[in-house]
Amino acid sequence: MSNRIDPALAVLGEFGLIGRIRERIRHRSSGTVLGIGDDAAVLRIEPGRELLATTDMLLEGVHFRREWGGGFALGRKTLAVNLSDIAAMGGQPLYALLGLGIPAAGITLAEVEEVLAGLEAEADAWGVTLAGGDTCKSQSGLVLSVTLLGEAPAGRAIRRSGAQPGDGLWVTGRLGGSAAGLLALEMGLRSGAAWPPHVARPEWLGPEEEAAIQAAVSAHLTPVPRLTAGQALLQCATAMIDLSDGIASDAGHLCRESRVGVRFFAYQLPVHPGATVMARWTGRDVLDLVLRGGEDYELLFASGTDPRPILAGGAPGLSVARIGEVHAGPPEVTLTGADGQTDVLTGGFDHFRPGA
Amino acid sequence: MSNRIDPALAVLGEFGLIGRIRERIRHRSSGTVLGIGDDAAVLRIEPGRELLATTDMLLEGVHFRREWGGGFALGRKTLAVNLSDIAAMGGQPLYALLGLGIPAAGITLAEVEEVLAGLEAEADAWGVTLAGGDTCKSQSGLVLSVTLLGEAPAGRAIRRSGAQPGDGLWVTGRLGGSAAGLLALEMGLRSGAAWPPHVARPEWLGPEEEAAIQAAVSAHLTPVPRLTAGQALLQCATAMIDLSDGIASDAGHLCRESRVGVRFFAYQLPVHPGATVMARWTGRDVLDLVLRGGEDYELLFASGTDPRPILAGGAPGLSVARIGEVHAGPPEVTLTGADGQTDVLTGGFDHFRPGA
Repeated sequence: MSNRIDPALAVLGEFGLIGRIRERIRHRSSGTVLGIGDDAAVLRIEPGRELLATTDMLLEGVHFRREWGGGFALGRKTLAVNLSDIAAMGGQPLYALLGLGIPAAGITLAEVEEVLAGLEAEADAWGVTLAGGDTCKSQSGLVLSVTLLGEAPAGRAIRRSGAQPGDGLWVTGRLGGSAAGLLALEMGLRSGAAWPPHVARPEWLGPEEEAAIQAAVSAHLTPVPRLTAGQALLQCATAMIDLSDGIASDAGHLCRESRVGVRFFAYQLPVHPGATVMARWTGRDVLDLVLRGGEDYELLFASGTDPRPILAGGAPGLSVARIGEVHAGPPEVTLTGADGQTDVLTGGFDHFRPGA
Repeated sequence: MSNRIDPALAVLGEFGLIGRIRERIRHRSSGTVLGIGDDAAVLRIEPGRELLATTDMLLEGVHFRREWGGGFALGRKTLAVNLSDIAAMGGQPLYALLGLGIPAAGITLAEVEEVLAGLEAEADAWGVTLAGGDTCKSQSGLVLSVTLLGEAPAGRAIRRSGAQPGDGLWVTGRLGGSAAGLLALEMGLRSGAAWPPHVARPEWLGPEEEAAIQAAVSAHLTPVPRLTAGQALLQCATAMIDLSDGIASDAGHLCRESRVGVRFFAYQLPVHPGATVMARWTGRDVLDLVLRGGEDYELLFASGTDPRPILAGGAPGLSVARIGEVHAGPPEVTLTGADGQTDVLTGGFDHFRPGA
């Protein structure tokens, strides 16, 4: 990577790049009155619907390294983490706005366009229209900031605050995969690539374990937002949150907002097979990856009824597990182990913790 | 500035900071169903209104230096540049979402809170509710990304595309002030401060010139979004854009979107007095500051009728000048000088131009 502006980017220029993005966009949401190319987008929200708005920023060196998964996966993930927030409200995503800070040096136009192609592919998959944005130079690595707008039936969006004592606590998918994938990337493994010769391979690590690691890397690089599950759960969830910082921390938000306690059972937590493998390899506690790893982007929700018939119809193929229960009491998250011992859970990812 | 995380920030933590922001917020927009503290905000847009959405990012070292104006002014400007986009549509701003990347080291919690206080003060001044956001660590200077949502009467938002041959071209306020203020800041002058001893003062530069420079510095650090003017112009503007990259470049957008030519008259351009002073001091061409300086955040609009009676009622005290006219022909911006000579204008700020 050279240390100067890619000549192709300098020739194309800021407005040439915006023009290319604009050409690339197809307007999929019927409410797009006016898209990219004016001071603001003009959008329509149907009567009887409420607007949902969320924003998430991905910074190079903090949230990602470009060499880990390539621009296309990065573009997909940038939108996916926002889609996950709309999923956690039971909403339908509609419009995205992209803030794009491009390093003054050390990135090619081709790499930038790969990121945009990934973002566009993810938008396409979920019927989202890129409705606006801001492009500028960054002196400090790639900056990707997405705001996602969506909608939900008026008064129906699923909040963090509605959990009731007696509700069951459920989670989609498997936990700890993203954190395990991150460990694998940090150790030098790459998505879809052969085992790198400079990484010592444990003798017990066979093809099945390697496949589990690859699945974990995919979970980290290209998380799948649980949108169809989220929308189906409008029928039964009393409270919901997506898992971005780790379930220990995210469940804490849910119980504080709902003013209830939540109790997990360790043996009911659905462990990602890649977490088991990476825990063994690195000597980490698998439960720590599952509880505090973060970035799983699964849905944690409370429900007074069994959600499985609803999810079997709305999101076929997605596993769901009952991992605990909601009870009256202090807004704490507790974990009961196989030995019956119960501990209060704390922690999860905090950006400003020294060493984070 | 130390090279480690401010202990106060580490103790408060990411969620403590979000909690403080949340406590600080007053909900001013009546449509806020659910604000900060869930996966997404839930917002209401009244029937008969369309949603406006815009996003702008400010990066340390690219858009600002923290030592230039302090955190409070920076927070205000971060919102103001977005408000200016809503103004350029004739819209009413309602909700803001903030992406905040905080340097891992070299900033104090107090500085971060000053930025937030500035943003909050600007939101307060215009009835905007901070409805959501994302806070994270940055390895690369302060990152401020705002998405602003607003509304306009359905079908009425003023686009860049409606200018008609025969329309007059008008601009609010004075031009070149922000670029002049930036030059002054780069030379070491500071807002509201005495003349710094290390900066050689030209002998011709008296108190009046110094006041003009201070006004230019203010125009750069705390631009005033022309919201009331923009809303009043719903009555007569056929096309409108806010001036962020310099009128030469921004007028080009307007004429390309409207498929018309625009002609400026150099002697009708309203020159900011600070631009005159800084041009003399630095040897820069004052017309270059006016045409290509950028960040004036005034409104450029086309109108088939005289907008002055409307603006006198809607935005009293704001100057407005007729600076040119719209004509049929190629989508070019031309400038006619006092000598009658006409040139095609190009340029304006481009983030990816080498040396930008």
